[in-house]
Amino acid sequence: MEENVSNDPVVAIVGVTGAVGAEFIATMDKRGFRISKLKALASARSAGKTVSFRGQNVVIEELTERAFEGVDIALFSAGGGISKQYAPIAVKAGAVVVDNSSAFRMDPNVPLVIPEINAKRIRDHKGIIANPNCAAITALVPLWPIHQNNRIKRVIISTYQAASGAGAAAMDELVESTRANLNGQVYTPKVMPHPYAFNLFNHNTAIDPETGYNDEETKVINETRKIFEDETIAIGVTCVRVPVLRAHCEAITFECEKPITEDQVRAIMAQAPGVKIVDDRAKNYFPMPIDASGQDDVLVGRIRKDLSDPSGHSISMFVSADQLLKGAALNAVQIAELLPQRVMA
Amino acid sequence: MEENVSNDPVVAIVGVTGAVGAEFIATMDKRGFRISKLKALASARSAGKTVSFRGQNVVIEELTERAFEGVDIALFSAGGGISKQYAPIAVKAGAVVVDNSSAFRMDPNVPLVIPEINAKRIRDHKGIIANPNCAAITALVPLWPIHQNNRIKRVIISTYQAASGAGAAAMDELVESTRANLNGQVYTPKVMPHPYAFNLFNHNTAIDPETGYNDEETKVINETRKIFEDETIAIGVTCVRVPVLRAHCEAITFECEKPITEDQVRAIMAQAPGVKIVDDRAKNYFPMPIDASGQDDVLVGRIRKDLSDPSGHSISMFVSADQLLKGAALNAVQIAELLPQRVMA
Repeated sequence: MEENVSNDPVVAIVGVTGAVGAEFIATMDKRGFRISKLKALASARSAGKTVSFRGQNVVIEELTERAFEGVDIALFSAGGGISKQYAPIAVKAGAVVVDNSSAFRMDPNVPLVIPEINAKRIRDHKGIIANPNCAAITALVPLWPIHQNNRIKRVIISTYQAASGAGAAAMDELVESTRANLNGQVYTPKVMPHPYAFNLFNHNTAIDPETGYNDEETKVINETRKIFEDETIAIGVTCVRVPVLRAHCEAITFECEKPITEDQVRAIMAQAPGVKIVDDRAKNYFPMPIDASGQDDVLVGRIRKDLSDPSGHSISMFVSADQLLKGAALNAVQIAELLPQRVMA
Repeated sequence: MEENVSNDPVVAIVGVTGAVGAEFIATMDKRGFRISKLKALASARSAGKTVSFRGQNVVIEELTERAFEGVDIALFSAGGGISKQYAPIAVKAGAVVVDNSSAFRMDPNVPLVIPEINAKRIRDHKGIIANPNCAAITALVPLWPIHQNNRIKRVIISTYQAASGAGAAAMDELVESTRANLNGQVYTPKVMPHPYAFNLFNHNTAIDPETGYNDEETKVINETRKIFEDETIAIGVTCVRVPVLRAHCEAITFECEKPITEDQVRAIMAQAPGVKIVDDRAKNYFPMPIDASGQDDVLVGRIRKDLSDPSGHSISMFVSADQLLKGAALNAVQIAELLPQRVMA
């Protein structure tokens, strides 16, 4: 740690040129996350370019096996392949890795953490802490305090997922294909499997040929059970990509063990960390991607009785959260803030 | 019927300049719906303009109380207010009205018809037949044959509804606000309650202050029960407007009285009138708005076990249908095709 003159950690960002990488920097800046040095890591293609952090230009270095020397905390968001290859190297070099990919999430030795839910699991880490899937985070931040109060037995989720979840190139493709569409031009999809302009489609992950569930849905199911430490919660989920840039929405219906009213849910939501209620029936104002974009909180609204369950055990609601922030960079930085490295480095 | 020299009916279209009005004309043309004369009716603002039908220009006439003389069949799609005012006048003049608005749908004297489901109800009409809500039609065409085979007890629907459901002006607003967004210009919504470019929001109908359900959702619930003639089917629904031009999608999870498998559902769908299976897991190819647009069928895919119901009674699927065709104009023309006026006029 030759250059680390303060007690603040050296932080590396892996994938600094990506959509989440940019938000790692912005989020650390916004939250006053103190560091002694930023190491900006990316592929050889970006090495030598610069990123701006707190008014200073930081030269991007190539991600190599030597890149983690002296690093205390490494925030990874460069895809599962990069994480699998380099996270163990970073750990060996002495860093704690907060990994935004799905590579280690279901590893029993890796804590899967949403700080509002299971911050205590951070202490179990053996070098890697996994950041959950964005669609899971968006649902679980509001569902957890309800689950604590009145156990959720079953949940059915339909997602409305933004381009950002597939990265900066997908966001560009949504913009450019829409521009082409409006100009009457043909646009051949390069990133997404289907035309994106004014269209929507099944989530762009592989489909299990047996179950018919896409990988995103399987992540939501498995990660919910791991984070809630509840293997019996029954989850049905449909993940859909919609032509929105960077905030996910979800229509959620859940059934509790005991009867539950919308007033009870509203009272729980009013106290819930990381949640903002947006639920104005008179003005028809509810969670929307344009309002969630750039916000830290999960917006929660349309809280109402699920009319398909006359027993009074079920509630429906609609939520929205910034996929790049709470769904990715913010959650990872929140985890990093809770690491002992932050004060002990 | 002075000009009606054939036995084919005189057909009036009310709201001929609207998005559905244009599709009434295109659908009659495509299906070879024989008529002796087309009366194109709209507001005074459009009177004197022309619409093209089978290569001929038809002059638009102003909708007045006298406009229905000699009309055999009147297809209405100009909003509930116009229907309430003019449909009884058309009936009095001897026409049978097929009304695309919600004005008469829940009137016990008015059949609410999806021909694939309850064509037999047409004979009960007293002058007016109602065309169901588009979100209801999209769900019910595939659900009905399942319900016949294995009674559906409960259904949970999340919609992804296109601009067209709010009319041609909303489609224009989606296009123009998106163009402005891409050009960095400010666009003030005129038709929709919220910015539409790369955004989504709760359906733009009033919210019941007590239940929290929007009118679109209430329509889906009430109309399903009327069409299925089943007051006990339990329905939960969330209706959302997405930035798509003209086809609705819906994520549907339903629970049957007896156990049901995805193979059984696929076999039923393969036989179902008005349904086309689009369900390719290997290619990640499922129902999409761009494929449903311009198609008569409801596209059905992502047929799979609902993993939130371990009892094996529940299935999830994803459907898409052209809101302007099966959701509106096509269904209405199908009803008109079954009217005795068509052969007896």
